[in-house]
Amino acid sequence: MSWQTEALKAKTILHNSLPKQWLLPEDRLPPPDTKNVIDFPKISGLLSDRELSITDMSATALVAGMESGRLSAEEVVVAFLKRAVLGHQLLNFATEFMAETAIARARELDEYYKRTGKLVGPLHGVPISVKEHIGMKNHTCNAGYVAWVNDMVQDDALILQCLSKAGAIFHVRTNQPQSLMHLCCSNNLTGTTTNPYNRTLSPGGSSGGEGASMGFKCAPLGIGTDIGGSIRAPAAFCNAYGFRPTMRRNPCLGIKAPGSGQEAILGVVGPLAANSLEDLDLFQRVVIDSEPWDVETSLVPIPWRRVSQHKGFTVGIMWDDGVVRPHPPITKALETAKSKLQSAGIKVVDWEPYRHAHGWDIISKLYFPDSAITQKSLIAQTTEPTLPLTTWAFAYSSPDPLTIPESWALNVARDEYRDEYHALMKKIGVDIILCPAYVGVAAVLGEAQYWNYTAVWNVLDFPAVVFPVSSSGGHAEDRGGLGKGEKDEESRWKARSEVEEREWRKWWVDPGRFEGAPVGLQVVGRHFRDEETIAAAKVVEEVVCGLEGRVRL
Amino acid sequence: MSWQTEALKAKTILHNSLPKQWLLPEDRLPPPDTKNVIDFPKISGLLSDRELSITDMSATALVAGMESGRLSAEEVVVAFLKRAVLGHQLLNFATEFMAETAIARARELDEYYKRTGKLVGPLHGVPISVKEHIGMKNHTCNAGYVAWVNDMVQDDALILQCLSKAGAIFHVRTNQPQSLMHLCCSNNLTGTTTNPYNRTLSPGGSSGGEGASMGFKCAPLGIGTDIGGSIRAPAAFCNAYGFRPTMRRNPCLGIKAPGSGQEAILGVVGPLAANSLEDLDLFQRVVIDSEPWDVETSLVPIPWRRVSQHKGFTVGIMWDDGVVRPHPPITKALETAKSKLQSAGIKVVDWEPYRHAHGWDIISKLYFPDSAITQKSLIAQTTEPTLPLTTWAFAYSSPDPLTIPESWALNVARDEYRDEYHALMKKIGVDIILCPAYVGVAAVLGEAQYWNYTAVWNVLDFPAVVFPVSSSGGHAEDRGGLGKGEKDEESRWKARSEVEEREWRKWWVDPGRFEGAPVGLQVVGRHFRDEETIAAAKVVEEVVCGLEGRVRL
Repeated sequence: MSWQTEALKAKTILHNSLPKQWLLPEDRLPPPDTKNVIDFPKISGLLSDRELSITDMSATALVAGMESGRLSAEEVVVAFLKRAVLGHQLLNFATEFMAETAIARARELDEYYKRTGKLVGPLHGVPISVKEHIGMKNHTCNAGYVAWVNDMVQDDALILQCLSKAGAIFHVRTNQPQSLMHLCCSNNLTGTTTNPYNRTLSPGGSSGGEGASMGFKCAPLGIGTDIGGSIRAPAAFCNAYGFRPTMRRNPCLGIKAPGSGQEAILGVVGPLAANSLEDLDLFQRVVIDSEPWDVETSLVPIPWRRVSQHKGFTVGIMWDDGVVRPHPPITKALETAKSKLQSAGIKVVDWEPYRHAHGWDIISKLYFPDSAITQKSLIAQTTEPTLPLTTWAFAYSSPDPLTIPESWALNVARDEYRDEYHALMKKIGVDIILCPAYVGVAAVLGEAQYWNYTAVWNVLDFPAVVFPVSSSGGHAEDRGGLGKGEKDEESRWKARSEVEEREWRKWWVDPGRFEGAPVGLQVVGRHFRDEETIAAAKVVEEVVCGLEGRVRL
Repeated sequence: MSWQTEALKAKTILHNSLPKQWLLPEDRLPPPDTKNVIDFPKISGLLSDRELSITDMSATALVAGMESGRLSAEEVVVAFLKRAVLGHQLLNFATEFMAETAIARARELDEYYKRTGKLVGPLHGVPISVKEHIGMKNHTCNAGYVAWVNDMVQDDALILQCLSKAGAIFHVRTNQPQSLMHLCCSNNLTGTTTNPYNRTLSPGGSSGGEGASMGFKCAPLGIGTDIGGSIRAPAAFCNAYGFRPTMRRNPCLGIKAPGSGQEAILGVVGPLAANSLEDLDLFQRVVIDSEPWDVETSLVPIPWRRVSQHKGFTVGIMWDDGVVRPHPPITKALETAKSKLQSAGIKVVDWEPYRHAHGWDIISKLYFPDSAITQKSLIAQTTEPTLPLTTWAFAYSSPDPLTIPESWALNVARDEYRDEYHALMKKIGVDIILCPAYVGVAAVLGEAQYWNYTAVWNVLDFPAVVFPVSSSGGHAEDRGGLGKGEKDEESRWKARSEVEEREWRKWWVDPGRFEGAPVGLQVVGRHFRDEETIAAAKVVEEVVCGLEGRVRL
């Protein structure tokens, strides 16, 4: 059987699952060359004003609405389903809809509420979109590989069980790239997902379907996974929130990916949110309060601590990672943040990156210590084409598989780097680092090549939050962006390396390509201080962005 | 240079460090063929009655004595130093004495107490013996390899720093086997350490020097390491207490062993105690209260919880691991324990071992996934002879190094096994498992070959405590020991396997070989429930052994 025939099965599953009653005919959709579709829901005619309001709400606000009886779970899930169908028509972000079971579950929850006057749990009726490789009972799970298109799953992934018990409803599954190792979102099964703010741009990856889902508000919460930036890049690219927890806190049982048992660098599962940092905390609280370590014993039994927000912390601002200076919109956002934080009386210092290239050297070797044979052989099974960003990712691996002692030496280097970085933060007295989430705003489709504004925190295993600071960052007048006299194309500054030259060429060639792209920033905390990191990020966000713009019912 | 010349350096260090004033002349020592030397301190004339009493005390009692002013740190450390010198002359357990620095530190502590009326910390003045491969600043560290005889250490191992801050005094370093992978204690540097209860028997290993130190009461507390039973076998063989904590709780920075970065099965560091379970808890409390994770960031930041002792738990008794039935003294000890526990109103059920052979299969492959090349090349460097039990241990490794994906598959099997075992304990409602610590009492020197009464808990990463139930278990009348009619040598039962046959032949050939050997048992708790495991073991010990026999000042 040809790989195309196999791959078609994924499209068929998706097609059959689409709730046809909500599909808009082609001629009512914006033309394909319309880049920014973020406001289309309002003019589409598909969603009522009430549904538009609902889909602008945070999970926290939705639950409050359901608790007070002002909202029903059914109307909430229907509103998000409609928006998700629209989003899919515009962005190709879904791999499967679960409209019927989602609505049935919502009705059960409404019944329960009617009967008892209570919610079933802290996520009662909250629709959550789910990255495809997080296994769902009686559904296929392909993890972006054609070879796995027929693989059926026996049990819900543990994280889904935790969330479901708390009342969450899973209404749509979302796209991911081939190999799960692009900061972009394209595969041979579902195709390419695009960014709602500019459809020539990437929604990020590998949780790119989640990025689009959050950006277009197809769900208030989503679940992604992150081994190098795969939650945070989509959040940053799509004007959303994302959280990479410390390893071994959130349950990973039932998440499918090649290379199970690789534990030198663990991927983590974590939340994305469309509307608020509070929702990231809510998600984490629910997951960890369920004590997943009592089933998945490799997790650490540390409860989700309730920490109070305060301004008594020190922010280190990292302007540049020492390898690739960020593009102008990012630097501007950091400058704005710095001045607002200082005005608010928060202590701010500059943070010198500590050996980030060394960190990348370690993690990039640990991604594929087998020379990516595991992944390559999976691709070879069906002869599906290896996509360019897959080739790009695999190129980080050494030509020959590492020996086990060679991999041990990297583990030692990793642990030393972690201890040194932690000691440095302690010595300097920096509690959180405010830094770019990516070298620029959302990459042009297929161009996301530099991972280390996020991946360095994976090798360090520091918790990291991404939040949006501006919903439109890529303006042509930022071109060049170094200093007042250096704006024209001819006065290019001298890059420190080919890598930096490559990344800046993407900007120099035409900043207009990034029109409409949002700007997100990253707050990084110390190992295992997940709770404090989210709390501090909330303070930073409130200071930098104010509290406007988030609908709270 | 020959390996012998190199190896001699370790003996020279030891020789130079011996406090000559306390050495007894040969003719005042018991003759070499005296097996049991446990009572020799009393008749040696070296220790005063007061010193004999001091060296019978637990760490907890010693600290109380120093707090009340009845004891000085100096007299305590001198008493233990004298006993340790005597112990070394009889058992060859030490690799280096630190008499001068220990006494100097004790004087400082006494000064501090005199000046302030306070102790410096909860281990004020407690002498602790230390396994040699736990690095000590400005001392060599050979880890049992001639190749490392000259290796100098720059910093104290982190666990020593934690204990030292609390007032502990390190007065003697102790022996370990070549490769650190024998349940026995012999190497080409220091030679063979023997068991104080019968010098033809092993003190256990790999923390065999610690076993001898505890058994002979050369220190109230000792520090060992354990990757397959290396704390617990010495404790069981030598009438002492030992604790294997859950991985990533106690700090391992600065502990030297080949294969750093191997993390599929982590060795742990933990306490042995001469006199009480309470001391194990004290040790753990001090170490973890010092928050070692703030330096060694791979540790989990879980405080040492204070749990209350109660009888409301269920004990599962494991009579047999399904592979090698234990020797008669062990089974008898379990029978006695069962009946006493039941009389005390503690719920007792039989525990069926769950796939222990499978557990062994996993861990034995993960010990040397590189086919022990790392260790073998270290031995080859000096051409020191490979000792028989080293060959025995290396034989567990596969002939060819595993590939990295093969090692991943073992990690997956390990995690599944952990989750399944945990779920089974939960389902059946068993809180702790009471089981053998070894197939029999202390092995004859060189014969300790079956590890899996301890190693299975390493692959499962369950905390485990060993405590003594009888100070003399190997009596000839226990011979055979299956049933009343089966005691003579001719009526041997049919072993289930060659392994079982091999292990029982050691008993059948002559149970008299084990004369004088103590009997210890093991209490195993659930993953990360270290505190509850020690607390439950205390209850079990009090019920099974009563409270007599432990000197408390």
